[in-house]
Amino acid sequence: MSTVKPGYARPLDLRKGRVDLAFGAGGRAMAQLVTELFARALANDYLERGDDGAVLPAPGPGERLVMSTDGHVVSPLFFPGGNIGSLSVHGTVNDLAVMGARPLYLAAGFILEEGYPLADLARIVESMAAAARAAGVQVVTGDTKVVEQGKGDGVFITTTGIGALPAGRDPGGARARPGDVVLVSGRLGEHGMAIMAQRESLAFDSEIVSDSAALNGLVEALYAAAPADAIRVLRDPTRGGLATTLNEIAAQSGVGMELDEVAIPVSPQVRAACELLGLDPLYVANEGKLVALCAPEHADALLAAMRAHPLGSEAARIGIITADPQHFVQLRTGVGGRRMVDWLAGEQLPRIC
Amino acid sequence: MSTVKPGYARPLDLRKGRVDLAFGAGGRAMAQLVTELFARALANDYLERGDDGAVLPAPGPGERLVMSTDGHVVSPLFFPGGNIGSLSVHGTVNDLAVMGARPLYLAAGFILEEGYPLADLARIVESMAAAARAAGVQVVTGDTKVVEQGKGDGVFITTTGIGALPAGRDPGGARARPGDVVLVSGRLGEHGMAIMAQRESLAFDSEIVSDSAALNGLVEALYAAAPADAIRVLRDPTRGGLATTLNEIAAQSGVGMELDEVAIPVSPQVRAACELLGLDPLYVANEGKLVALCAPEHADALLAAMRAHPLGSEAARIGIITADPQHFVQLRTGVGGRRMVDWLAGEQLPRIC
Repeated sequence: MSTVKPGYARPLDLRKGRVDLAFGAGGRAMAQLVTELFARALANDYLERGDDGAVLPAPGPGERLVMSTDGHVVSPLFFPGGNIGSLSVHGTVNDLAVMGARPLYLAAGFILEEGYPLADLARIVESMAAAARAAGVQVVTGDTKVVEQGKGDGVFITTTGIGALPAGRDPGGARARPGDVVLVSGRLGEHGMAIMAQRESLAFDSEIVSDSAALNGLVEALYAAAPADAIRVLRDPTRGGLATTLNEIAAQSGVGMELDEVAIPVSPQVRAACELLGLDPLYVANEGKLVALCAPEHADALLAAMRAHPLGSEAARIGIITADPQHFVQLRTGVGGRRMVDWLAGEQLPRIC
Repeated sequence: MSTVKPGYARPLDLRKGRVDLAFGAGGRAMAQLVTELFARALANDYLERGDDGAVLPAPGPGERLVMSTDGHVVSPLFFPGGNIGSLSVHGTVNDLAVMGARPLYLAAGFILEEGYPLADLARIVESMAAAARAAGVQVVTGDTKVVEQGKGDGVFITTTGIGALPAGRDPGGARARPGDVVLVSGRLGEHGMAIMAQRESLAFDSEIVSDSAALNGLVEALYAAAPADAIRVLRDPTRGGLATTLNEIAAQSGVGMELDEVAIPVSPQVRAACELLGLDPLYVANEGKLVALCAPEHADALLAAMRAHPLGSEAARIGIITADPQHFVQLRTGVGGRRMVDWLAGEQLPRIC
């Protein structure tokens, strides 16, 4: 993303202007879009340099790099609790955080549809900038492409992040073992149901708001509360929800799980909306929730650390890891029964993130 | 990109199957797409782990990181000389290489349109894998999203790269100074005209083939041939072509340029195709050409190093940097005249990369 000012051109009309194919052509119009809209909102020294990429200090001695990427195609682009801009920062920051890394730098690739209002694009980029500031990361490089009307859908953003992984941390999905405890940082399904409620124009007594948030602060609070080795697996249950996340971990670690349905936090509004739409909150996406699998002797301390953090006040202990050669995730239901919690089989909620 | 095998599902039909919205939903279908198509082609230990990102060794002591991202929306997806898969590797590898970095790791974010043939997707991913192997980089993490038919255009790929920048190298765009020499590694406009010829179904005596290629080997050959400080600016003239690239550098460095039209290498086919379509080859995109601005006393050695490399056999010295407070790029024409080479003003060739 070059931030070079091409000189003597009329400024972009950020109130009434629209995305033009010329913004993707690499010439003066693109340079204007970058300087007058992107670089202004995301301002930092790396973008200022105006080169094809960013030169960054390497992480500290003994630290490894973590890299993660996430495309965002959420529809609608604006929803209660955020928009594609803030979501695209949270999604990638969280992928780094659940790897145990301190998120440092983001790169943002925009694919814009011709005709999209510049005013809305500016709001999206400003949300991105605010989310990045709040999470303590910088958008250090970027790219913009434009496709013809009908070949895209407003705005797609692919965000890639680099983080630094301190020595000793390794919360990969393969480290769960029988007896470990499953914690979750709060109420499930809020992001997915906020999107669905808006998409289906459902009106509830109180609006469902996406939980979209950066989890790196919460993750650091956990590492401050227990030895790194006691934190076996961290994940953010996004697409496919808690059920899919736990099945992935069960398969990676070669274990089973037993969950307690009554202990799993779900708000009354989300539960009601799910019932109305025939959805199971365990499969609905979250964008600001943390699942932590931990050694049993540190579970109380970690749960207390979660609850002491603003993003974890409703945290709960929801189950344990079992030895199970079939890697089943099972649920003890409220009425004393048992049911399998399988992988999400097909499409439940398309374009939720 | 989770590479966990979800077990007991029928394998994907890679011959006749099509992209389904379920492939983006985060469940079993997505896990199958990743394991049976992406991870199989791009196989490496980082992808194998199946986590939300890749844990990578940090660069060597004294080295800085370079990060760059590039969205790819080229249309058509397949063209003479490559496809969006190879192009998406070359584009990002080249952005890192022209920053002076050794490219190390790539992340790939796919946005797929519902209904796109899996067989074509597999060809694209295989081209990506082959291009990455040839360039000596690994695709260490990725992401897949699916949008409804009519909300995308087959396949978009956003590729983000990390490279290591050895101490002493800094070929940023602001380092050109009067007297420096402008070198270019070969014939211009081949990528853009290969795309245009296919899009417009133009038939020429001999097909125009995209120059899409990884430039990191050529860049290393230059650093082996002269002191790092003598290599002032490196760039790959992609969207907007040589003209836009040189105008960007002139603005960043606060200099002017004087180019010799006769010395600028353009093939007869590209020249003929440009005339037919009313295009100027100086504004047409390249995907495997290097522009190097260098200290005059090292220009001969660097030109010789370019010519000794398979990607630089047609390299040429095409101009010099001048002191010009207006930062104009000017061309001495074949007939002894002079003309301004301005920024690309609007859209010339949409979706060329």
